[in-house]
Amino acid sequence: MQAKNRDSFRNGTFFSIISASLKGISQVILIDNAISGLIILIAIMISSTSLGIIVLLSALLASVIGRFGGTDRTIVNQGLLGYNSVLTGIALFLNLEGDLRWVIALAGSAVAVFFTAAMMHVMRNSKVPVLTFPYIVLTWFLLLASYRLGRFQLTPSLVPQDLSHWQLHPEGTLNLMHGLINGVGQVYFQDTIWSGILILIGVFWAGWKLGLYAIIGTALAWITAYSLGAEVTLLNLGLYGYNAVLTIIAVAAVFDTKSRLAPLTGIIAAVLTIPITASIDTWLLPFGLPTLTMPFVLCTWLFLAARKVIPKL
Amino acid sequence: MQAKNRDSFRNGTFFSIISASLKGISQVILIDNAISGLIILIAIMISSTSLGIIVLLSALLASVIGRFGGTDRTIVNQGLLGYNSVLTGIALFLNLEGDLRWVIALAGSAVAVFFTAAMMHVMRNSKVPVLTFPYIVLTWFLLLASYRLGRFQLTPSLVPQDLSHWQLHPEGTLNLMHGLINGVGQVYFQDTIWSGILILIGVFWAGWKLGLYAIIGTALAWITAYSLGAEVTLLNLGLYGYNAVLTIIAVAAVFDTKSRLAPLTGIIAAVLTIPITASIDTWLLPFGLPTLTMPFVLCTWLFLAARKVIPKL
Amino acid sequence: MQAKNRDSFRNGTFFSIISASLKGISQVILIDNAISGLIILIAIMISSTSLGIIVLLSALLASVIGRFGGTDRTIVNQGLLGYNSVLTGIALFLNLEGDLRWVIALAGSAVAVFFTAAMMHVMRNSKVPVLTFPYIVLTWFLLLASYRLGRFQLTPSLVPQDLSHWQLHPEGTLNLMHGLINGVGQVYFQDTIWSGILILIGVFWAGWKLGLYAIIGTALAWITAYSLGAEVTLLNLGLYGYNAVLTIIAVAAVFDTKSRLAPLTGIIAAVLTIPITASIDTWLLPFGLPTLTMPFVLCTWLFLAARKVIPKL
Repeated sequence: MQAKNRDSFRNGTFFSIISASLKGISQVILIDNAISGLIILIAIMISSTSLGIIVLLSALLASVIGRFGGTDRTIVNQGLLGYNSVLTGIALFLNLEGDLRWVIALAGSAVAVFFTAAMMHVMRNSKVPVLTFPYIVLTWFLLLASYRLGRFQLTPSLVPQDLSHWQLHPEGTLNLMHGLINGVGQVYFQDTIWSGILILIGVFWAGWKLGLYAIIGTALAWITAYSLGAEVTLLNLGLYGYNAVLTIIAVAAVFDTKSRLAPLTGIIAAVLTIPITASIDTWLLPFGLPTLTMPFVLCTWLFLAARKVIPKL
Repeated sequence: MQAKNRDSFRNGTFFSIISASLKGISQVILIDNAISGLIILIAIMISSTSLGIIVLLSALLASVIGRFGGTDRTIVNQGLLGYNSVLTGIALFLNLEGDLRWVIALAGSAVAVFFTAAMMHVMRNSKVPVLTFPYIVLTWFLLLASYRLGRFQLTPSLVPQDLSHWQLHPEGTLNLMHGLINGVGQVYFQDTIWSGILILIGVFWAGWKLGLYAIIGTALAWITAYSLGAEVTLLNLGLYGYNAVLTIIAVAAVFDTKSRLAPLTGIIAAVLTIPITASIDTWLLPFGLPTLTMPFVLCTWLFLAARKVIPKL
Repeated sequence: MQAKNRDSFRNGTFFSIISASLKGISQVILIDNAISGLIILIAIMISSTSLGIIVLLSALLASVIGRFGGTDRTIVNQGLLGYNSVLTGIALFLNLEGDLRWVIALAGSAVAVFFTAAMMHVMRNSKVPVLTFPYIVLTWFLLLASYRLGRFQLTPSLVPQDLSHWQLHPEGTLNLMHGLINGVGQVYFQDTIWSGILILIGVFWAGWKLGLYAIIGTALAWITAYSLGAEVTLLNLGLYGYNAVLTIIAVAAVFDTKSRLAPLTGIIAAVLTIPITASIDTWLLPFGLPTLTMPFVLCTWLFLAARKVIPKL
């Protein structure tokens, strides 16, 4: 205990909070590396300064709450309380309008800290990680509140649609390069080439294997979604890709990957995200909500938990 | 064990079942006090005798099933098997019509006992209380059954609506006093001033602190909902208030409140019930279902579980 | 361990996989008996050869994955990894069209194995069985994917409907005999008399008590649904029956039935499936999805978990 205190004194609370916050940014893509977090923060900043500020503030908020709330230091320092806040901040900021948008995004990212802690407690026995579940559910709830609270203003792009009147329009001009790079960038809601490339550099910085899996994930997703007849607009925006990228990294490279077949399991899990993305898009149609990273969470949970019973996966 | 038997003999099974039933009524608002339960029962009786009878019968049913089903005596005697039955009985009785309404309400409150027991078992490791989750889910399911079973007759006030055609109508004349008192009364589905006041007296009887938190909860909810642009009709009916009342009592005064910051955490949790209420109202719009106490359950679970990981909350 | 190896050598891997697969078929109706499985396979074959092939391939796939994936032998050999695959294969094959239908049905049944394993892990502490939850959720998700992926072609019979325009049409001519036998046959999606009777024979083969409960279950369901005003077309198709059949077998005869009141609890649980079926039909109306065995899963979980707290159930 004393040694720990001395250590934290030496590093300085300030530095450790900054490091935890940058790791909170990198943990969105399952990376525990402050430099990667910094590169990704810059990637977001160059496409939108205000979004970058939200990302930084959300990550800082999470680290400060964790640190002064008495949470286990190793959890806070790895950024594990922060990534859900970062994503909640981004998603609320991008999908809301009006003067209260900054306040709601930051309040949401504070609540995301509590929700992440709550899920850690509830799931501690299952030995399966929380992933981005708290962010997804919280964002969906706060966005839907806008239909009953006048001060929550939703962007006009989120339109509830009746499934019985739904028509699939798969036609359009494919743009492979955009689709592939956006598949990585969309992990952080980025759909410009340069942000996508910078984020990929951040991933490679943390390990070439992670970067390679990110590329395999986005390519695999593109091919699978295209063969199954997905909408071209979604393919070009990378909206079928980011869940596969996260899933293959999680299942093949990050969590409990002792099995020789782990890379294959990662590929199967990544392919499965395509129909699951299509499906969650459909479930949410009547509510006009975005799918976010729910396909990643469901597919990753499925395979990580299955491994406890089918150990060779 | 022998001492226990002698004790139960002295009190008499009859008295202990009555006491457990009255506590089942008071546990709806998280109070373990038979006199409070009696005061609240009277509060309901003066607004509707038949509703009062349903409340009493539901509570008795739960105590009898628990007692003769072999459930741990302390659980039964604290009314912990009963409050979900009381609420299920009320909600079904008020939202159904026709001659089968009494039967369905009482059958529902019997099933609520089993559901509460099931949730106690499932959640025992999480050290987070069941709250009113069983009542909410059971009531939603039984109300929806009316669309496919001719003998279940829903009140015409529950109308499914298409979210894509939804328009918010926040205008109306505020009635602060009604809004505040109904915010407490709605815990028991009461929207008349005298019932609300009597229920508040029942809460104060169990402890001035609990009564004070109930008042803070309803006031906080009113202010938050008003500032966020909530519908005036809902404000006047207290429909934004009761979840905040329950949440602040649960988080700040009843469960695991060692932390010095517990009152502040309670306030944050109570404020969070407002967007969550708005959100669940929206989720349920296409099904025409009432929100019931789901915001209380979600917000309270969130903060109670978060406390296990962020201990200073 | 050695004895086990010798044993498995004696039986031969091939035979043990066949046996596990047939038990996977019988486990759909909670029976651990290869001959019953074979009888039921024949029952399905005589109504549709291709469906029978899907059933057999799904069951084999599950046994092979379990066996070579390193899962505990006793789980695999009892067919406990297989029944969700069998049902997923059937449901996808019957509700999809087009050339990819075979591939999707078999890929789905492979994923069902992983999902079943995952749920076994997550639920192992609760001491409540997984039942058919993985199959239901997976099938719902894969069917809904068809709205966004052109190559997934849904049968035209699954039509999303707006609850606000829903009208109940209970009229029609009752056919009691069809209703009762289909109530058993629908466990395997069969609605012809001979298949239903053969399936019932398969159940009786495993034990007269199980067969008797199946008959009580379908009769009880018919009477309850009829008295509550259910639609005649659904009654004739047995669509209110199969969940009650499964539930009464599970609660009264298969799981944790020490209590003297277990048969009564089974009856209550079976009756409860009727409003729950009606309710889930309603929840799913806007998505046009079939209810499958969700009422069975919910009612059985409810009573099995409640028994841990109310032991005399």
